[in-house]
Amino acid sequence: MNIENPKSLIVIFGATGDLANRKLFPSIYRLFIGGKLSKHFGVIGVARRPKTNDEFRTNVKEALQEASIPVSDEAIIDEFCRHFFYHPFDVTNKDSYQSLNQLLSSLDEQFQVGGNRIFYLAMAPEFFGTIASKLKSEGLTDTAGWKRLVIEKPFGHNSPSAEELNEKIRDAFSEDEIYRIDHYLGKEMVQNIEVIRFANALFEPLWNNRYISNIQITSSETLGVGDRASYYEKSGALRDMVQNHMLQMVALLAMEPPSRLQTEEVRSEKVKVLRSLRRIHIDEVDDYFVRGQYDRGTINGKETIGYREENGTEPESNTETFVAGKLLIDNFRWAGVPFYIRTGKRMTVKSTKIVIEFKDMPMNLYFPAGEERRPNVLVIHIQPDEGITLHINAKSSGPSSGTIPIKMDYSNNSVNSMNTPEAYERLLYDCLRGDATNFTHWDEVALSWKFIDSISEAWAMRKANDFPNYAAGSMGPTQSDMLLEKDGFHWWPLDH
Amino acid sequence: MNIENPKSLIVIFGATGDLANRKLFPSIYRLFIGGKLSKHFGVIGVARRPKTNDEFRTNVKEALQEASIPVSDEAIIDEFCRHFFYHPFDVTNKDSYQSLNQLLSSLDEQFQVGGNRIFYLAMAPEFFGTIASKLKSEGLTDTAGWKRLVIEKPFGHNSPSAEELNEKIRDAFSEDEIYRIDHYLGKEMVQNIEVIRFANALFEPLWNNRYISNIQITSSETLGVGDRASYYEKSGALRDMVQNHMLQMVALLAMEPPSRLQTEEVRSEKVKVLRSLRRIHIDEVDDYFVRGQYDRGTINGKETIGYREENGTEPESNTETFVAGKLLIDNFRWAGVPFYIRTGKRMTVKSTKIVIEFKDMPMNLYFPAGEERRPNVLVIHIQPDEGITLHINAKSSGPSSGTIPIKMDYSNNSVNSMNTPEAYERLLYDCLRGDATNFTHWDEVALSWKFIDSISEAWAMRKANDFPNYAAGSMGPTQSDMLLEKDGFHWWPLDH
Repeated sequence: MNIENPKSLIVIFGATGDLANRKLFPSIYRLFIGGKLSKHFGVIGVARRPKTNDEFRTNVKEALQEASIPVSDEAIIDEFCRHFFYHPFDVTNKDSYQSLNQLLSSLDEQFQVGGNRIFYLAMAPEFFGTIASKLKSEGLTDTAGWKRLVIEKPFGHNSPSAEELNEKIRDAFSEDEIYRIDHYLGKEMVQNIEVIRFANALFEPLWNNRYISNIQITSSETLGVGDRASYYEKSGALRDMVQNHMLQMVALLAMEPPSRLQTEEVRSEKVKVLRSLRRIHIDEVDDYFVRGQYDRGTINGKETIGYREENGTEPESNTETFVAGKLLIDNFRWAGVPFYIRTGKRMTVKSTKIVIEFKDMPMNLYFPAGEERRPNVLVIHIQPDEGITLHINAKSSGPSSGTIPIKMDYSNNSVNSMNTPEAYERLLYDCLRGDATNFTHWDEVALSWKFIDSISEAWAMRKANDFPNYAAGSMGPTQSDMLLEKDGFHWWPLDH
Repeated sequence: MNIENPKSLIVIFGATGDLANRKLFPSIYRLFIGGKLSKHFGVIGVARRPKTNDEFRTNVKEALQEASIPVSDEAIIDEFCRHFFYHPFDVTNKDSYQSLNQLLSSLDEQFQVGGNRIFYLAMAPEFFGTIASKLKSEGLTDTAGWKRLVIEKPFGHNSPSAEELNEKIRDAFSEDEIYRIDHYLGKEMVQNIEVIRFANALFEPLWNNRYISNIQITSSETLGVGDRASYYEKSGALRDMVQNHMLQMVALLAMEPPSRLQTEEVRSEKVKVLRSLRRIHIDEVDDYFVRGQYDRGTINGKETIGYREENGTEPESNTETFVAGKLLIDNFRWAGVPFYIRTGKRMTVKSTKIVIEFKDMPMNLYFPAGEERRPNVLVIHIQPDEGITLHINAKSSGPSSGTIPIKMDYSNNSVNSMNTPEAYERLLYDCLRGDATNFTHWDEVALSWKFIDSISEAWAMRKANDFPNYAAGSMGPTQSDMLLEKDGFHWWPLDH
C-alpha cells in the first residue's frame, strides 16, 4: 500500500476557505514538485459559490504566491493547475452529488487514477455527517479504487456529539478509511518524539517514573481570538486545544514502545495511555485544572483588548482562553509523574515546547541538601523553533569545585526549510499512501472526550467569577503557577 | 586548610628549565593578578648556573611575555617580580642547602609567610631522591609552617624504581605532604569528568555495563620526539603517557561515586579501579596491547622524518612512539566493557578525547536487524577543543520514517579563556591550599606501574621487527584498528 507516488482524485469540500488556500493547495503543490505525487492526480474544489475552473485555478495560483512558494517556472505552475477543477455545490442537494460523481468519473479516466478517491472535509463541522451519508447514498463511495475520508477538527464537542458524528460517518466509511486530522501529529518535532524516545539508548532507559519527575507541555499563542469568536465562544481552549493536540502529545510522550512502527501498533499504545489517564471527577476539577480568560494587556509593546471586548464574544462570556492542567497516568511506567499542560491565547510568546524534567540524583555530591537543586532537563522545541535542548551540569571553570548549568543544543532550523515539509504536506502524503499512523483513531477521540467532558461540564455549571483573570501578554492566571507549586515544581521558562 | 589566598614560599628546583618558564611563572602570575595568591609569598628559583636576582626577574618577565600574558601595567609586573629570588645551587652540595635555608628564613620574615614552604622539583628525575633527603638532613623541612613537596613526572620507570624513589622521599615528607603532579588532572575537561558523571541524573544511571558498550580514550600528538630523544629512548609512549595520564583518565571514568568529594574519598575510589584492572600476563600482551614507531610521513602537507632518523635516537631503536591497548576492569560495574586507549606521536591531529559508546537498544525499532546500527555516543573533548558532544538519532526530515544522526554540542571554548585557568595554575593553587585531590597518591603510582611492568617487560624482551610500522600523519599501525575490530568495534574518528 505504501507506494511512493500514489494516484488519486482529491475532492476538497470547502475549497474557497482559509484552510484550503493557506495549507492544502501549497501542500499539494510541494508534493507535486517534490515528485511525491504521480501525474495521475486531480483536485476538485467544492464550495457553494459558483466559479469557473479558470477562476479556481487563479485562486490556486494566488494561494501559492501567498504561501511564498518560490515559483521559478510558469509552465510548471500551469501544468499543476491543469489538474484543478471546480464544482459548485449544495451540501443537501442530491443533484450536486450526482454531478460531482460524473465529474469524478470523467477525471478518473482523464488522469487514469484507478478509481482512488480522497474526500477532504475542510469546512464547517455541522455538515460532516450529512456529506458522509450523501457520499454513500449517491454512490460516490462506489469506486473501483480505494476511498478515504479526511476530517478536520473538531470532531464533535463532547462525547455524545462525537459518537453521533462517528456513527454517521462510519455508515459510509470504515474506520480504516477515515483520516481524522490532528495537524500537530504532522509537525516535524512531534513526529520526532517517537524517534527521540525509541532510537536512542540514552533516553529510553530513563523514560519512566524512576528518573523523570514531571513533564510540562506548553502551547502558547500571542494572537487573540480574532475572527473565530463565534466558533470559539462555543469551544474554548479546552475543546479547541486540549482534547486533541495536547492529549495527543501526552500520548506520544507516555506510550509504551510499540512492537512495530506501524499504524495499528502505535495507535493501540496511544489508546492505552488515554485509557490510563486518571479521570477527574466533576467535583475535583479545581484540584487538577485551571481556566483563564484574557483581559486587556500589552504584547510586544502593543496594547490589545480583552476577550470580552472582541467582536462576537459575549460581554459576560464564560469561555476560557487559557487552560492549565495536571494529568496523571495510572500505569506502571508513569505512576506518580505529573504531566502538566497549558495552552492559551494572548500569552507572552508564541511557542510550543515540551519539557522533561529529570529527578535529582539519589545523592547529589554537588548540591548538598538545602541548596537549590538544578535538575537535568530535556526540552523538545515544537514551534516556532524546532530542536532539542539538554540542560545539564558541568564544572564551573576556575579553581572552585562548583558547577554551572550548560546547554547542549540541536536546532532543526538550520535544515533547509524547503526540505522540511509542512505538517499538512506530510499528512496529505500519508493519506495518499494509506498510512494512518499520524491520524487519530476513533478510540483516541472517544477516550479524549471522556476525559475532557467532566472538566467542561464542571466549568459550564459554575461561572468563572474571576474572568477575565489574566492580562494579555502574561503567562496566564497565577493559579496556573500554583498548580505546580503545590507539587514542589514550577513551569520552566519558555526561553529555557 | 582550604583558605582562599594562602601564604607560602615556593622553591622551584630547575628554575631555568622549560617547565618553570613555560608553565610555572605564568601560572604564579595569573594566581597573583587573580587575587588567589596572598601578598605573603616569595619564589626562589634554584638551578646550577649562577645568576643575579635581577637577571632571574628579567627571565620571569620574558617568560610572561612568551606566554602571551597581556600585561597592561608595568608597575604590577614589577611588584610581582620583587617576590622572585634566585639561588645558584649544587644538588649534592651541603652548603647549597644551608644557604638556601638561610634565604628561606630571611624571605619568610620579609614576606611573613608563617613558615610555609613548597619545594617544587621541576627538573631531571635522577635527583629527586637526593634532594628530598638533603632537604631533610640540612634542616630545610624543619619549619614552623607546613611543608609540601611537588614532584613532576616521571615517578620512576617501573615498579622497583618507583618504590625506591618513594622510600627516599617518604623519609623526608609524609604521604600527605607529597604532591605528585599529573598535569592531565589539572585540565578543565578532565576535572569535568567527575561533574558530568556525578551531577547529572541523565548520565549516572547509564554509566555501567548495562548501557555502555565500550570507552575509547585517545591522546594524539602531531609533534615528533623533538629534542627529548635522550629521555624518550629510555621511556617510550607506554611509560611517558599510559602509566600516568591514560590510566588516570581511565580511573576517573570508571570509579564508583565517592561518598564525599574529598581527597581521601576520591583517591580511594581511583585506587579501587586500578586494583580492579585486569593484569596482563607477559605472555598475552599481544592480545591486549599494540606498539608502534613512526616512519617518515607527511603532516599538514609537511614531510617529516622517521623516529629512527631523529637526533639522539638509535638507528635500530626499539622504542615505541605509539601505544594502543585494551583494558578490562573486573568489577561489578564494568565487567565486559573494554576501555580502549591509544596515544602516539606524529599522528594525524593533536587531540585528546574520550568517547563513551552506548549499547544499542534491546530492540531498536529504527534499525532492523542486519542494518548498520548507529549507537549513541558521548564525546568529552579534553584538548585542544574543550567541550562535550552527544551523538543521538532524530527523525530525518521529510515524509520518510528514517532517522538521521544529530549532534548536540557544548563548547567550553567560548568561555573567556582568561577565566579558564591553565592546568598548572589550577594545580599550583590546589597545592598552596593543601588540596591533594588532583594529585596522584602513591598507591595509584604503585598500581599503575604494576599494570605497566608486564607490558614493558614483554616489549623489552622481544624486538619489534616491524618497526617503524606507521607513517607519520597516520593514526598508528593497522594492528591498532584490529584490536577493536576483533571485538566488533572501531575507533570513532577524532572529528566525530
